[in-house]
Amino acid sequence: MAKKLVEQITSMDEDFTQWYTDVCIKAELIAYSHIKGFMVIKPYGYAIWENIQKHLDARFKETGVQNVYMPLLIPESLLEKESELVNGFAPEVAWVTSGGTEPLTERLCVRPTSETVFSDFYKDDVHSYRDLPRLYNQWCSVVRWEKETRPFLRSREFLWQEGHTIHATKEEAEARTQQMLNVYADFLSEDMAIPTIKGRKTDKEKFAGADATYTIEALMHDGRALQSGTSHFFGQKFAEAYDIQFTDRDNKLKYVWQTSWGVTTRLIGAMIMVHGDNSGLVLPPNIAPIQADIIPIQQNKDGVLDKARELYDELKKAGLSVKLDDTDKTPGFKFAEQEMRGIPVRIEIGPKDIEAGQCVVVRRDNREKYTVSLSELAAKVPEILAKMQKDMFERAKDHRDTHTYKAADYDEFIKTINEKPGFVKAMWCGDQVCEDKIKEDTGATSRCMPFEQENISDVCVCCGKPAKKLVYWGKAY
Amino acid sequence: MAKKLVEQITSMDEDFTQWYTDVCIKAELIAYSHIKGFMVIKPYGYAIWENIQKHLDARFKETGVQNVYMPLLIPESLLEKESELVNGFAPEVAWVTSGGTEPLTERLCVRPTSETVFSDFYKDDVHSYRDLPRLYNQWCSVVRWEKETRPFLRSREFLWQEGHTIHATKEEAEARTQQMLNVYADFLSEDMAIPTIKGRKTDKEKFAGADATYTIEALMHDGRALQSGTSHFFGQKFAEAYDIQFTDRDNKLKYVWQTSWGVTTRLIGAMIMVHGDNSGLVLPPNIAPIQADIIPIQQNKDGVLDKARELYDELKKAGLSVKLDDTDKTPGFKFAEQEMRGIPVRIEIGPKDIEAGQCVVVRRDNREKYTVSLSELAAKVPEILAKMQKDMFERAKDHRDTHTYKAADYDEFIKTINEKPGFVKAMWCGDQVCEDKIKEDTGATSRCMPFEQENISDVCVCCGKPAKKLVYWGKAY
Repeated sequence: MAKKLVEQITSMDEDFTQWYTDVCIKAELIAYSHIKGFMVIKPYGYAIWENIQKHLDARFKETGVQNVYMPLLIPESLLEKESELVNGFAPEVAWVTSGGTEPLTERLCVRPTSETVFSDFYKDDVHSYRDLPRLYNQWCSVVRWEKETRPFLRSREFLWQEGHTIHATKEEAEARTQQMLNVYADFLSEDMAIPTIKGRKTDKEKFAGADATYTIEALMHDGRALQSGTSHFFGQKFAEAYDIQFTDRDNKLKYVWQTSWGVTTRLIGAMIMVHGDNSGLVLPPNIAPIQADIIPIQQNKDGVLDKARELYDELKKAGLSVKLDDTDKTPGFKFAEQEMRGIPVRIEIGPKDIEAGQCVVVRRDNREKYTVSLSELAAKVPEILAKMQKDMFERAKDHRDTHTYKAADYDEFIKTINEKPGFVKAMWCGDQVCEDKIKEDTGATSRCMPFEQENISDVCVCCGKPAKKLVYWGKAY
Repeated sequence: MAKKLVEQITSMDEDFTQWYTDVCIKAELIAYSHIKGFMVIKPYGYAIWENIQKHLDARFKETGVQNVYMPLLIPESLLEKESELVNGFAPEVAWVTSGGTEPLTERLCVRPTSETVFSDFYKDDVHSYRDLPRLYNQWCSVVRWEKETRPFLRSREFLWQEGHTIHATKEEAEARTQQMLNVYADFLSEDMAIPTIKGRKTDKEKFAGADATYTIEALMHDGRALQSGTSHFFGQKFAEAYDIQFTDRDNKLKYVWQTSWGVTTRLIGAMIMVHGDNSGLVLPPNIAPIQADIIPIQQNKDGVLDKARELYDELKKAGLSVKLDDTDKTPGFKFAEQEMRGIPVRIEIGPKDIEAGQCVVVRRDNREKYTVSLSELAAKVPEILAKMQKDMFERAKDHRDTHTYKAADYDEFIKTINEKPGFVKAMWCGDQVCEDKIKEDTGATSRCMPFEQENISDVCVCCGKPAKKLVYWGKAY
């Protein structure tokens, strides 16, 4: 039966896409609903999201951010005030046209993002430089009518947070845009064990209505890129469209400077695709809803369950989130379940272990086994988890680095991007024509212009004209 | 200026409704959005909701409840499977009719409640008695197209939690219905300092589709009742409509037994109307986002701000949520702001206090002043807060009890309900005709048939036929 559980997921080497879907289902993260593109997030998946929220929310609040809640529905006229945004989102919004038994006089869209609503609110909320900055965020769901959908990665409804800030000066708004990108990058590397490339999006790839979009790009196990979080600098574009003015210290009326930034349940997809293996999920200890799974061996033998419960209490007391699997399944099946769910360590304890005053701790990521004396377990498990968290990051970083290539000319570029899954670093002239051509020729897109620039060559990899920027290119989810 | 802030709210004795709205705005809980019935929950209002969530969520999880997330949109055909529910909600749902540029082949409603979606999910999720019970809950927003709207009390969109559980036996489902009602009642009394009457709704007042609806009813300061939380027992009605079957221990296919239960942001309205006064909000210490507001007196004098900061650090270290108001406003204005926002205690500290090694602590609820030695402050404030929490509950209970009347005959009933704001306890025959007549004659509704029954008379207060139940009647929000 243990074998059966494992066999239920496709091998990642055989079909990565199918492996991903299998893990989402078999690890009980989601279920498909009867509405295309809308998924049910099951308890285990939602517990992961709650942990992501807990960590991120604390990081936001440390920087002075406050949470609010804005209306779900947006009148069409409000959406239309900023033309770039409406053009960007109009093809993918859901429209409410009647409320109760009455048709509405104006249709309302289900929020795809809330720049318009925040701007409309700020317009009346802010009067003086004393009211600034406003650093608001909301945790909510949004709807975008995507054609192709995949669990977590692209769905018609998803959960996210969207921060929207306004400032008295350009410098302060720009600094906030960078600050939040750094908050995301630090959270991903420290808690999710996912290394990212920080950089700026090209104009083609930036958010509709933004002056500048900054991104963190992660590399999945299959060599595809995933945009994992974005932070936008809007300049005064929305302020002008929505008339958000304040009286500055010099007594003059001025428009505010604005930012927005967000991450979504897509992060769960990133975690699956960066850390998972052929036995299922592998969760970083900082995010795992259950960090240790105690699995008794020969649990019907005298004293085994008692000892297992003792260990459970001790680990719980040490601040760990623990599960004791005392169901009547076989140990082998329990191991397979623990592995499928990516619980960072399992603790095996049977009659012989008890006699020897020890137990066996097995790490999920590399299956390393530790024989630990029972009296030291509560001190040792946190150490093992800390080591595992660190190793997972290093492993992901190694994978990213060994799958990041350089290309100086177009032949090399095409060959690399087609044959070697990963990032390709190459120079770019700054012209969208080259971006379009690369996409057409290879399916790859510009992921970002990294903050850490290098000079690989003096000319654009595509057209040969003078190069302006180093760009990370990749095939993306 | 301090006076001006207070004068901005209407006296509650003059116009309670206007007082309520004024407090919502002036205490910065909400702002009106540009969409009728949709409000913006501002940082202070949302911080209160976060505290309500934190307390309630922990209480849910203690009983084994797990959080999930279900789709926002519900296909019309899915909604229609249970006819009572659809008839109950059809007049007040918002319909999505197009996604992106395409009209939908079937309209989708924005969830007004999620019994249908949970049922549709459970249908495929549950197979055996081993899969039961399922104790799922979600925190989300819902939309109901109300005609009259008021902040927190009745809005077209509101935040809530909805628990949906399924069980193998009727007894277990009934017990869960009661258990969650008790969780709500305990939370309201212990954390929100709001006493409630627990009871069962009459058939006229119960939830569309429920076999039985249980409620906690609270009494507001103006003598109006507020339904503050409900727990529903569905029997097997949804199970049959949505075909949720499981194989029981006896190997027979059976329908599950189902419950649902919810509380909403309406609880914030209850807290305002039970505890507030003519200076603004009064928040129970267990729920207040800021528990103590340190207000320096003559803060420009040497050492005052330093000492205030020291106290801030000490109180913070003692686990309290503290604010130090070192802005350049006058102390009087700061007092008025602290009172408007209902911060449980303020701590006044000036040069003379420092010289005497003491400070003044003022309770928000009764303005009682305590002179506390600085060295004892961190120990004393939690005591004062605990006392205040208890007193607030007792005061609300006294108010409720002194505004609960009995009526044995219809003349007395009409006179009492019209002249004395509050609950009126009276006997009822069980016939909806009498409920309808009472509503027509007085505007009052049956709030609940309390669990603690009394025998006031042997006959129905309205028709004189034999009485079946004691009922709490009242005019309600």
